[in-house]
Parts: sequence; structure tokens; C-alpha cells
Amino acid sequence: MDIVDKVLAGDVRSAARVMTWVENGMAEAVSALKRLFPHTGRGFVVGVTGPPGSGKSTLVDRLTGEFRRLGKTVGIVAVDPSSPFSGGAILADRVRMQRHSLDEEIFIRSMANRGHLGGLSRTTNDVVDVMDAMGKEIILVETVGVGQDEIEIVRTAHTCLVVAVPGLGDDIQAIKAGIMEIGDLFVVNKADRDGAERTYAEIEGIIRQSRTGRGWRPRIFKTMAVKNEGIEELARGIQEHQRFLEAGSGTSRKVRDRSEAVLWALLEERLLTRVRERIVAGCAFDELVDLIAARRVDPYTAVEQVLVCLGLPPEPAPLPRLTDILPTD
Amino acid sequence: MDIVDKVLAGDVRSAARVMTWVENGMAEAVSALKRLFPHTGRGFVVGVTGPPGSGKSTLVDRLTGEFRRLGKTVGIVAVDPSSPFSGGAILADRVRMQRHSLDEEIFIRSMANRGHLGGLSRTTNDVVDVMDAMGKEIILVETVGVGQDEIEIVRTAHTCLVVAVPGLGDDIQAIKAGIMEIGDLFVVNKADRDGAERTYAEIEGIIRQSRTGRGWRPRIFKTMAVKNEGIEELARGIQEHQRFLEAGSGTSRKVRDRSEAVLWALLEERLLTRVRERIVAGCAFDELVDLIAARRVDPYTAVEQVLVCLGLPPEPAPLPRLTDILPTD
Repeated sequence: MDIVDKVLAGDVRSAARVMTWVENGMAEAVSALKRLFPHTGRGFVVGVTGPPGSGKSTLVDRLTGEFRRLGKTVGIVAVDPSSPFSGGAILADRVRMQRHSLDEEIFIRSMANRGHLGGLSRTTNDVVDVMDAMGKEIILVETVGVGQDEIEIVRTAHTCLVVAVPGLGDDIQAIKAGIMEIGDLFVVNKADRDGAERTYAEIEGIIRQSRTGRGWRPRIFKTMAVKNEGIEELARGIQEHQRFLEAGSGTSRKVRDRSEAVLWALLEERLLTRVRERIVAGCAFDELVDLIAARRVDPYTAVEQVLVCLGLPPEPAPLPRLTDILPTD
Repeated sequence: MDIVDKVLAGDVRSAARVMTWVENGMAEAVSALKRLFPHTGRGFVVGVTGPPGSGKSTLVDRLTGEFRRLGKTVGIVAVDPSSPFSGGAILADRVRMQRHSLDEEIFIRSMANRGHLGGLSRTTNDVVDVMDAMGKEIILVETVGVGQDEIEIVRTAHTCLVVAVPGLGDDIQAIKAGIMEIGDLFVVNKADRDGAERTYAEIEGIIRQSRTGRGWRPRIFKTMAVKNEGIEELARGIQEHQRFLEAGSGTSRKVRDRSEAVLWALLEERLLTRVRERIVAGCAFDELVDLIAARRVDPYTAVEQVLVCLGLPPEPAPLPRLTDILPTD
């Protein structure tokens, strides 16, 4: 029984090891993921996003408890893109691990960003796939909902849950406006705070204006996660959305969206890595930077030169035909 | 006198028009930016970052007032990546515009994200260049400091100012850890709030531990931006850092870092755009997505095929030599 078989059998240590390969960009990750991939597609992925301080972690924690009570196995991926240098997600991870450490059916993984080439959404996808392949039925992906990367991460989940909180400043309004289109469910957490009704009404107003046309009307919930209040209703709401997707063509649309996003994220990363190696090796990159710094060449002209150097001139050459990649079985 | 000459003469309407071209990805933008670029490099760029609700906008507003009092012209670029769909930065922009609308020497531009291909840092760079070319002496670039993109945006500023605020949750700690390495100056805003001393002491502790080795010891300031308290000292701190950079090799290092970041941002965008067109046209992309969705092909195998289709196989072919791009004058 090798490591891939062990992951498929639900072995926690083996899964954690593959995830470490993924995060460190090791070659072993790719061969493991290729073998795990056919066994994915069974887990239901719930993206949870919201501003710092909205209580996402506690909410995810309580939702996990509720899904366990309902007999579901749960995977949690806590994405912390705010620590590109220091890997600051570790502490939070430990705190959470303690709470659920006695439950074998919960798997928690915190991720900080590694590298610069748009790798976070790709590594998150891969870690979700590992959890899926090991048989987790509900996979909660939690991320701070501010930047573009983070929105991409939750966008392709089956259900996207947006957490708001009363009493933050103006920035919060902009955040809400930005993520309204991706929210299937909304949560006003810390609902005992001043301004909760106003926040609720604001979200309601925006939902009323937006017509998604997909037949699902976004719902709003009030929770006090620290007191475990409103969690049961929220978990029911998530399952309702799951049933809605499964009843129509929703699931297959989401699966296709997710496949496309995964392919693009991986392609971008691979492409930029490959091109970066080539450029540094053969396109006089450092000299170009010096020329730009001296204002002797503008960046646009420099990029045109690099693209020519890479064999990607503005006028595209005819493409070779795509090798037939249909599986032979 | 054409539009580029007008920008160089400081004309606000012309500058705004070029910025709109930049944001909309229009061909006119490139030719204008090429001509403006030799006139850049004079403005001093201050990146301002911090979590939602930390009062960045007010702080930038007050700093602007202070720099105007000191006789400097000011440009403000407010980057709002949280609104990829709705362009939610507009309202904030209007509110601010009102306050400074009578002052010809202040130019304010709000930017939301457009498109998916990592365009935000590139368009921000371009807008900063336009402000620089039109003669703004201080250019304040404000962004929510959470995601990787946003960190990239402020990272290449001459001075990076990190705004913290007392009394937010655990997330804030992670954010602080993530951006410590890029902060030249730190601000504890809303310093009359409970916990201000603790936040100050925490930042101090992290600074003491981190040894940048560049000779600049990050400084911490307390402000109450709404009451205009602490702003004068902060503006002096920024100017001190400016003098520090100019006295040593700091400025030229920052200029080179910025040139490199600009070149990469532009290259990534151009590369992904070009490749996307080719893939969609000739690499059976939709079919690949369908195969992934059906779990018949894994994403890693699919990407390898696309790279072969693009003429970028794992084993790189020898590169053509870089055309000599040294200006002939």
C-alpha cells in the first residue's frame, strides 16, 4: 500500500504529507495528484469569506461541529494569504487543532502563500482535491475576502458563504459590493452587536437589486458563532443550496467552472515559472531592468522585446495541433 | 499641443483621460505611456496599506493636507481591489474629491480591479507614472493590505507605511506579521482606542526582532487621523525616510526594485493575454475543461499538453538572441 492508496483509505498522515509536497512545490506532489484526481468530485466544497475580524474561524469551527453532529466527515482548508513571508497561519492552526484533535473525521490544514506566481489558488485547489480524494464529505475553505486571489479561491466552491459583521468602517461596504455576486449565502455574524439590523437590511437591499438569473435567491442568516447560535439554521441553509444545485444543472455547472479555474490557475503558474527561467537565462532581463531604471527604455517596449525573445511575437505563428489526449481506456 | 504634452504640463483632464485608457486597456494608453515614461522618476511614491477599518483613507486625506501645507503637489491613487465586479471605489472617490476639489495641486484617482490577469498592480504602476510625469511631487498609493497583489503594490513604493489599529481580532496579527518586512514606517491610528499601547508595543517588539540590515530602523507613529493629531510628525517621518534613501544608495535600489516589479507585472499580463488568445483559438481549451470536469484527464496532464501546444515544452528549446534594444541616441 503506497502513499496514494493510504490517502484514498483516509489516512491522515499520508494526506498531510502529500499536502506538504504540494505546498513546497515538489515533483512527488504532481504524480500523487494525478493518481488522486480520478477519485475526486465527491466532496461538497463550501467557501467561507469575509473581512478580518468578522469571526470566520469561529464560524467555521461551529459549522464543523454541526456537520459532525449530522454524521458528515469534514475537511477544513484555512487560507491565510496575509503572511507571504512569515507563514503566520501556524498559530491559529494549532489552536484549532486542539479543539478537534480527538475527532478522526475532521482534517484541518492551514495554508499561507508560498512564492509569487499566483500559486495560492492553485495550491488551495490541490489541497481541496486531496481532502476530497481521502473522502471528506464537506470541505470548508476559509479565506479573508478582500483581494482578487481570495475571491478567486472561494468563487469556484459549490457554495459561497459571505460573512459580514456589524460596525466596521466604510471599507466593509466596498467589500460587500465586491463579493455580492459570488455569495450564495450571507451571514451577519456577531449579530448581538449594534448595527446588526442595519447590516442585515443592507445586504437584503443589495440582494433585491441583483438579479443573478440562476434561480437561486441568496439567503441571509444571523449568527453568534461564539455562542453557537444560528449555526444549525446556517448548516441547513448550506444543505438546501446543495440540494438546489443537485436538483438542476447547478452542480455540473459549478464543477465545470471549477475545472476551468483549476486549469487556468495551474497553467498560469506553470507558464510563468517556465517563462521566468527562460527569460533570466536568455533574454538579458537584468540589463532590461537597468535600462528601465535609467529611463532609457520604457517597460512597454521592454516587454515587447522579451516576448519576441520568447518566440511569442505580437503576430502569432500558426499553432501545432493539439495532441490527442483522450484517455485510451 | 497633444494630450501627452498637456499631461506633462500638468493638465488634469488630459491625465484623467490617459488613466481611463490605462484602466480600459486601450491601445492609446501604451503609446502615451511610452512617451510619458522618460519624464517619470521625479515623484516620491508613498505606499499606504492596512486592514479594512484602520482609517487609511482619512489618514491619506490628512497627510495630503499636511504635504500641501508644506508646498508639495500631491497625487493620490486609491486602489480598491475588493470590487472586481462592481467598481465600488467610486463613491469613496467622490466623497474625497469634494474635500479637495478646490485645490488644483491635488489629483485623486480611485481604481478598482479590471480583468483577471493580474492587471491591478500593472495599471496602478501606470497611473503612478502618469501622476509622476504630470509633476506630482508626492504620490500616495493607498490599498487594503491583505492579499498578495496588494502587498506587491505597496512593496515597490519608495516609502511603505503600514497602518494598524487597536482592537481588531486575531486576523490582524497575521496581517501585521505578513507586512512587517515591507514596512518602513508604522502608524497606530485611532490611538485613543483601548489597546493602542499594546498594539504599539507589539509592533515595537516585532521591529526589534527583525533585522533588515539596510540601515533603516522602522519607526512607529501614533495618530488620530479624524482629529488631525500626529499627522505633522508622520509627514516629517516620511520626509526623513526620503532623505535617508537619497543620502545612501537607497533611492537607486528602490528605483531598480520598482523597475523590475513593473517589468514583471507587465510581462505577466501581456504573456497571459497572448497565451489565452492562442489557447482558446487553437488548443481545444473547452474540450480540456470538459475532460477535467468529467475526471477523465487530471489538470496536470492537461497543462502539460497545453504547454506543448504553445510550443513551450518542458525541455526548453535554445533561445534566439535578444535584439539590441539600446536606444540609438
